[in-house]
Amino acid sequence: MSGADVFRPLYRDGGVLRLLDQRRLPAEEVWLSLERAPEIAIAIRDMAVRGAPAIGVAAAYGAAFSLRSGGSTPVEERFATARRLLAATRPTAVNLFAALERMERRFLAVADRAPDAAEAALVAEADAIAAEDIESCRRIGRFGAALLSGERAVLTHCNAGALATAGYGTALGVIRGAVEAGKPIRVLADETRPFLQGARLTAWELSRDGIPVEIITDSMAGHFLSRGAVEAVVVGADRIAANGDVANKIGTYGLAVLAKENGVPFYVAAPMTTVDFACPDGAAIPIEERPGSEVLTFAGQAIAPAGVSARYAAFDVTPARYVTAIVTDRGLCRPPYGESLRAAGSA
Amino acid sequence: MSGADVFRPLYRDGGVLRLLDQRRLPAEEVWLSLERAPEIAIAIRDMAVRGAPAIGVAAAYGAAFSLRSGGSTPVEERFATARRLLAATRPTAVNLFAALERMERRFLAVADRAPDAAEAALVAEADAIAAEDIESCRRIGRFGAALLSGERAVLTHCNAGALATAGYGTALGVIRGAVEAGKPIRVLADETRPFLQGARLTAWELSRDGIPVEIITDSMAGHFLSRGAVEAVVVGADRIAANGDVANKIGTYGLAVLAKENGVPFYVAAPMTTVDFACPDGAAIPIEERPGSEVLTFAGQAIAPAGVSARYAAFDVTPARYVTAIVTDRGLCRPPYGESLRAAGSA
Repeated sequence: MSGADVFRPLYRDGGVLRLLDQRRLPAEEVWLSLERAPEIAIAIRDMAVRGAPAIGVAAAYGAAFSLRSGGSTPVEERFATARRLLAATRPTAVNLFAALERMERRFLAVADRAPDAAEAALVAEADAIAAEDIESCRRIGRFGAALLSGERAVLTHCNAGALATAGYGTALGVIRGAVEAGKPIRVLADETRPFLQGARLTAWELSRDGIPVEIITDSMAGHFLSRGAVEAVVVGADRIAANGDVANKIGTYGLAVLAKENGVPFYVAAPMTTVDFACPDGAAIPIEERPGSEVLTFAGQAIAPAGVSARYAAFDVTPARYVTAIVTDRGLCRPPYGESLRAAGSA
Repeated sequence: MSGADVFRPLYRDGGVLRLLDQRRLPAEEVWLSLERAPEIAIAIRDMAVRGAPAIGVAAAYGAAFSLRSGGSTPVEERFATARRLLAATRPTAVNLFAALERMERRFLAVADRAPDAAEAALVAEADAIAAEDIESCRRIGRFGAALLSGERAVLTHCNAGALATAGYGTALGVIRGAVEAGKPIRVLADETRPFLQGARLTAWELSRDGIPVEIITDSMAGHFLSRGAVEAVVVGADRIAANGDVANKIGTYGLAVLAKENGVPFYVAAPMTTVDFACPDGAAIPIEERPGSEVLTFAGQAIAPAGVSARYAAFDVTPARYVTAIVTDRGLCRPPYGESLRAAGSA
């Protein structure tokens, strides 16, 4: 199977990055056309694009487009400025930094070429990152398909789908892989407050593919787990430490504890680019705090009394002991993850 | 301390039940004036009033007002019709049924009086239920105050406050009791999707009292528990089985598991009227399922794609093994609850 037929939420069209604005889904499908690094940085920071692999791809194009403007500024400075801007957008997803490092290595190799030729080389590198991401997701789907039977619902959190990647998805890639293997998969999707990625995005892309999906509030997951309604939990990851601790969308940790308490397997699906071998464990992963106002308003309307504040931790860390397996693009990793992740990483 | 100075979200004013419409908070303070059992039943069903003790009080007034209309219908039939209507509103809160049973006992004792005299007796009984509820909450507050220090935040879910009772609150009664005892209590309030009782109601009544409160999404509770930010979780209950299993707002079970996993005490605050000794355990408690549309829309706006459905379990059951103590109006009950609840009930 090629990646050509998958839905791609961001892709290059000539000299432009076309990017589906995920803030407007499901009400509207609005595509942004971005041609400069600063506007791509804003799209990442303001969550027009989100999901660790998709953020990495968007940042790669931002870096690739960085040589275009700047007048008499040397290309080295143009690239460095763009890189800094893109790296400052969101702290947790490691794919962002991995993609920028890879673009920098490519930049250093081509910086002495004519600007047009250097840009063409960077654009080709970003294209490769995008294509490899789709292929990684396909492989995750094939490796993960065997974990699901379809006998009970599969529970997922946030959106680790096509919309979180260059296409096909990680957690939803596992679900798509199982569906392609002929299994009667039904999905329970946590709505995932406050940004509602589950209700807005996961429901949108699964129903688009004809995969049955029902939405629950995040607070209902424990109830359905305790009642035997769920065969497995499958989520994505924003960063995986070398020991298998997983940073992912806020609420993932609670789900993992509840899955373990109820004897339900808890799977994390992510490409090896999401593993940060420089991070020994979850305590070393920076957790993004976003403005409390994003919790306190909904569709522009206040949900709390004036003057009351909110906390907004955007991610949490799930210790490796709650994770049944990590489904990577190089196969399934099982505990102890220190060994299995390293083996997969060097395979 | 008398109950006279507490904020009362529902109270009798002459022949009228005045009831603060909790669906409109915090944007507007709209008071409903209800004079007939059917309109009180609708207010309960549609959640203008919610919270187990408050539902019981509202239903008591509904029963008290039932003799007023009905033309030539015998009073027995008027009362029975109102009772049936009120009992059919919401299945989980046992206080509803306990209040209706008490009103029926009173009705049977006064049914042979003139209709005006019978109504006066029933109204006095409803007044007594309301006054006793406030006094119960005060006692819960005094018994529970010793459990909190104020060193870290106290986490609560939904609204088990003044707005869920005739006044003062159960879980928030414990918090108020600790504040009155001079402790520097800070509250983390789960927003409590989908009805947002935490963000709308708990934040409203705590900030009205000058008690510091910050809102988090339900999915953030595990993160803050795991980071040591919480000294205790305190919640209310809609029904407590004889063995100490607790039915409460959806999400309570997950909180209890996460509290235990992180070594944080988990307290349930409720008057003895919330204990259903006829229910041997949580499996026997009916769990209300409400329309999925209440999950899928917010302020009239869809949060999910058209055609996608949702599940809405409104309550869950927390097994007694996760409950550190139950704070009742007759003192603290500790495990094993089969014994301690029975002792408190017969004290």
